[in-house]
Amino acid sequence: MNEALFTANNLWILVATILVFIMHLGFASLESGFVRRKNTVNILFKNSMIIAIGLLTYFICGFNLMYPGETATGFFGFAGFGLSLPDGDAGGIAYADGAYAYYTDFIFQAMFAATGATIVSGAVAERIKLNSFLVFTIIFVALIYPIAGMWKWGGGWLDARGFYDFAGSTLVHSVGGWGALACIMVLGPRKGKYTSKGIQAIPGHSMPLATLGVFLLWFGWFGFNGGSVLSADPMGVSLVFVTTSLAAAGGAVGAFFTSYAMFKSHDLSMVLNGILGGLVGITAGADLMSPMASIIIGLIAGIIIPLSVVFFDRTLKLDDPVGATSVHLVCGIWGTLAVGIFGSMAGGGQFITQLIGVLAYGVFTFVLSYLLITVIKAAMGVRVTEEEEIKGLDLAEHDMEAYTM
Amino acid sequence: MNEALFTANNLWILVATILVFIMHLGFASLESGFVRRKNTVNILFKNSMIIAIGLLTYFICGFNLMYPGETATGFFGFAGFGLSLPDGDAGGIAYADGAYAYYTDFIFQAMFAATGATIVSGAVAERIKLNSFLVFTIIFVALIYPIAGMWKWGGGWLDARGFYDFAGSTLVHSVGGWGALACIMVLGPRKGKYTSKGIQAIPGHSMPLATLGVFLLWFGWFGFNGGSVLSADPMGVSLVFVTTSLAAAGGAVGAFFTSYAMFKSHDLSMVLNGILGGLVGITAGADLMSPMASIIIGLIAGIIIPLSVVFFDRTLKLDDPVGATSVHLVCGIWGTLAVGIFGSMAGGGQFITQLIGVLAYGVFTFVLSYLLITVIKAAMGVRVTEEEEIKGLDLAEHDMEAYTM
Amino acid sequence: MNEALFTANNLWILVATILVFIMHLGFASLESGFVRRKNTVNILFKNSMIIAIGLLTYFICGFNLMYPGETATGFFGFAGFGLSLPDGDAGGIAYADGAYAYYTDFIFQAMFAATGATIVSGAVAERIKLNSFLVFTIIFVALIYPIAGMWKWGGGWLDARGFYDFAGSTLVHSVGGWGALACIMVLGPRKGKYTSKGIQAIPGHSMPLATLGVFLLWFGWFGFNGGSVLSADPMGVSLVFVTTSLAAAGGAVGAFFTSYAMFKSHDLSMVLNGILGGLVGITAGADLMSPMASIIIGLIAGIIIPLSVVFFDRTLKLDDPVGATSVHLVCGIWGTLAVGIFGSMAGGGQFITQLIGVLAYGVFTFVLSYLLITVIKAAMGVRVTEEEEIKGLDLAEHDMEAYTM
Repeated sequence: MNEALFTANNLWILVATILVFIMHLGFASLESGFVRRKNTVNILFKNSMIIAIGLLTYFICGFNLMYPGETATGFFGFAGFGLSLPDGDAGGIAYADGAYAYYTDFIFQAMFAATGATIVSGAVAERIKLNSFLVFTIIFVALIYPIAGMWKWGGGWLDARGFYDFAGSTLVHSVGGWGALACIMVLGPRKGKYTSKGIQAIPGHSMPLATLGVFLLWFGWFGFNGGSVLSADPMGVSLVFVTTSLAAAGGAVGAFFTSYAMFKSHDLSMVLNGILGGLVGITAGADLMSPMASIIIGLIAGIIIPLSVVFFDRTLKLDDPVGATSVHLVCGIWGTLAVGIFGSMAGGGQFITQLIGVLAYGVFTFVLSYLLITVIKAAMGVRVTEEEEIKGLDLAEHDMEAYTM
Repeated sequence: MNEALFTANNLWILVATILVFIMHLGFASLESGFVRRKNTVNILFKNSMIIAIGLLTYFICGFNLMYPGETATGFFGFAGFGLSLPDGDAGGIAYADGAYAYYTDFIFQAMFAATGATIVSGAVAERIKLNSFLVFTIIFVALIYPIAGMWKWGGGWLDARGFYDFAGSTLVHSVGGWGALACIMVLGPRKGKYTSKGIQAIPGHSMPLATLGVFLLWFGWFGFNGGSVLSADPMGVSLVFVTTSLAAAGGAVGAFFTSYAMFKSHDLSMVLNGILGGLVGITAGADLMSPMASIIIGLIAGIIIPLSVVFFDRTLKLDDPVGATSVHLVCGIWGTLAVGIFGSMAGGGQFITQLIGVLAYGVFTFVLSYLLITVIKAAMGVRVTEEEEIKGLDLAEHDMEAYTM
Repeated sequence: MNEALFTANNLWILVATILVFIMHLGFASLESGFVRRKNTVNILFKNSMIIAIGLLTYFICGFNLMYPGETATGFFGFAGFGLSLPDGDAGGIAYADGAYAYYTDFIFQAMFAATGATIVSGAVAERIKLNSFLVFTIIFVALIYPIAGMWKWGGGWLDARGFYDFAGSTLVHSVGGWGALACIMVLGPRKGKYTSKGIQAIPGHSMPLATLGVFLLWFGWFGFNGGSVLSADPMGVSLVFVTTSLAAAGGAVGAFFTSYAMFKSHDLSMVLNGILGGLVGITAGADLMSPMASIIIGLIAGIIIPLSVVFFDRTLKLDDPVGATSVHLVCGIWGTLAVGIFGSMAGGGQFITQLIGVLAYGVFTFVLSYLLITVIKAAMGVRVTEEEEIKGLDLAEHDMEAYTM
């Protein structure tokens, strides 16, 4: 390993860090586009605070919970509060054998950490109390996300078991999705969603914002998946770019046809979520799929999206304004299982292992999130008053409106 | 060539790929800002599908049509369906002498492929049938763009002839512009544009969206032109950054003064299109112009924009809602000819060669596009009904609105 | 120094250039979100022209005023008009000992140059005459910014004196802030701001645009600060990423609590400006602070923001629609002084030196800007008529509206 290669490798992880950062703008745009005008400031405020909370808690304890090093056991470890730059050159070329520096490792992982809470943010939109949500976020990203993440990426029991999740179909997206599911179950639907007259569609207030969000998320996903190669290896990163892009394209096409068949119209929100579903789906195996397998994985994710959205909305009557559970939870599970079906790790044993990982993350995250939001509900309340909900959270919580005439 | 240099080179082409990707968001924003509110979802939907179609068709056949390798003759070649990663290390450091890997080559070129169709998308906005447009797009990006591109970048007859087009003033922008021209001729103007009371201006619905689009396009152009160096060569890429930026700045200034002289007001849409005109204009010779020549090329492109927009609108009575023909076709021709006027390739012989290239691409693309859209018109119709046009394509084709109150 | 390391280093400065470029979109979005609907086109138009003017004037004279090389004395130097690529390889690997190429140096610095004028743009919004502002901008970025910048970054007297300003808390942000302060003093407040009925809040027209702007600015700041390492040194750049991100997060949290204590509501615009304040605050010492010191610097900047906004608005009665003076001037001063308080350069002597630098830049920039805007006022007027202000600058200056129904 020489200095030039170390510099190029490290540079890529830093660029990937920037790309994952901008996904937070993507989520903010997408979620605010999909909610009503009267709750827009609230979403923007939450997502601005989430990235701040994510970075600070990951600095305080998250990084050392997720990557506990020698303190790791199968399920838990903790390397201490704050950061500890290794002495001398040990934080540089020697830190990861020339792949990235110590601080690069921290900041790249820190940008990931808050995404889980952002996924929850969209699902609980338009009715959750701001402070209750922020308390949930702090605990979710400070403790639940990194401890769960350690099981695989920190060298825990699922890593030892052979579970595979390249960039986080399960560790990031499903974990966020399970948190979202727990919260919307406790929180209940928005007023006026499920009425005696039937299920009401509540359209989002700005399709340009939602579209901007999806393109920014795809943009950032090149860093999310590409950076997860954890070096600038030309063959590795370029394959990930190809699989990621083709899966997103497949997701668009899958959602295009499925939603047209179901609704007889060209539903932009379904195509946008189809793209995201394809991206979530490829994330677990983006480094080991062929281009053709990527298209199939994305296509199936795109087909899943409208079916899953209708299933959550009409069958389960769980109100998720942005479709976060379908995109992140359902397609996250699909992508994780797809590692056992397609590509270089396909096989019955691997499929079982993938299923064990999916279930383990599901039980752990869902149960803890459900407990957490239930405790918060008992302690400080979790839902705005009916009057505030009708008025809108922007006026109720922020005393301002998103737009003036 | 060593591994570190290969890694740095390849990394730049991957970053450039991401930048070209985000140009699709730039086009989506620009075009939706320049159309009426009632047709916004339609533009966003089209542009979301275009990138998906572009990536998939380029995977299926486009890449191997545009770069047919040993199967190339002067005008046509085809290396087979799908991708074929060369055996062993031949897709890595050996693939392009350490400049980029095989998959990097594919994904960078794939991001270019769909831009041509996006250019068409803006010109035909507010009246084309969605499915007819998508069929046009599939054939345009799967066959017309790559076959035309092969003539120069794939080693065809125009490359042998000495034609020069560094990053695609002609191969991308004029090709898209000729396609747009053919389509708007067949399609006809929007209802209410050319009336017995004279020519009506139909202002776009959101200048912030349009401005966002232009800045994102400029942002992406660093990858479009900078990546076309096809390595991270410091002298080469840095010169391209300088020429690209100065031409865009020149375009803004040229359009500022010309549009003020013509309209006695400071027309934001002209300055925005002036920036784009400068960028399109420098694209053919961004690697071989001096900074001063770049400013002149951009300035002239900026002067051309308002003149050309008025010429298309008032003289030819061709209705182009976003000015795509002026920006991409006219400035694309200007930039291609400028290679024979300025810089290190200036000269009478080169000018003639550039002119031959411009004409060849014009005839090929315009004729095929005209035939294609005419066939589509006969087979499935090409224009929405008058009632649908008045109602807006968002409600007619998508059963949804871009904004809710 | 070998070619591969040179290539990686240079690549990072080019990527940083792109990131600083997109900050101009960040400013355009932020400022247009914070003004009223009727003045939106005007802001977008100004910011589109500022980047063009900045690039062209920096090419014509700015670069050679700021980095005059051998012609430098303590206060002034000029290496001639235009660019002069050194002969042969002297503009390449030899130019900066393998850190970046000549053209890279120019274009990275050129992107910085226009930011000062953009800061002014927001403060004077909604009442300044367009042409008067553009004349101010040309002189400010062509002469005031580069001559002031030379004192430190061009090897002038403050550099010799030991003044420290890593990436421009003072040289960019305070300089822009002093210019803004001078202009709003001469210009006076917007009609209806300070009335016999008291001070009126004039809310911005689009919080999504403002939020988009802040996230894009943070995104670009990775290049602004990270590129100021002036190489891709892994330890240096990764530390800057960490300090920059944590200071922004600290700024959000500081503004969250302070504004809640002051206003009893969750004010999104304060949190957004708190993030920016944290970023401005860390900029002077981003390369030499510990993560913990960065959080404290950001937190204090975030606390400063609502206090400073209220101080300017209610105590000084200086009308600054976007809070540019609080963010860029006040937090710029704070960040510059913080270098003498925290981190590896803390100490009484350094604190005095920092203070001298702050004062020197303040006096020079404020006095010249005040003179300049006063001369412009006498020569061509500086403020639109009352009628135009009420009508809005979009119709008055541009004959168009930002949005149509």
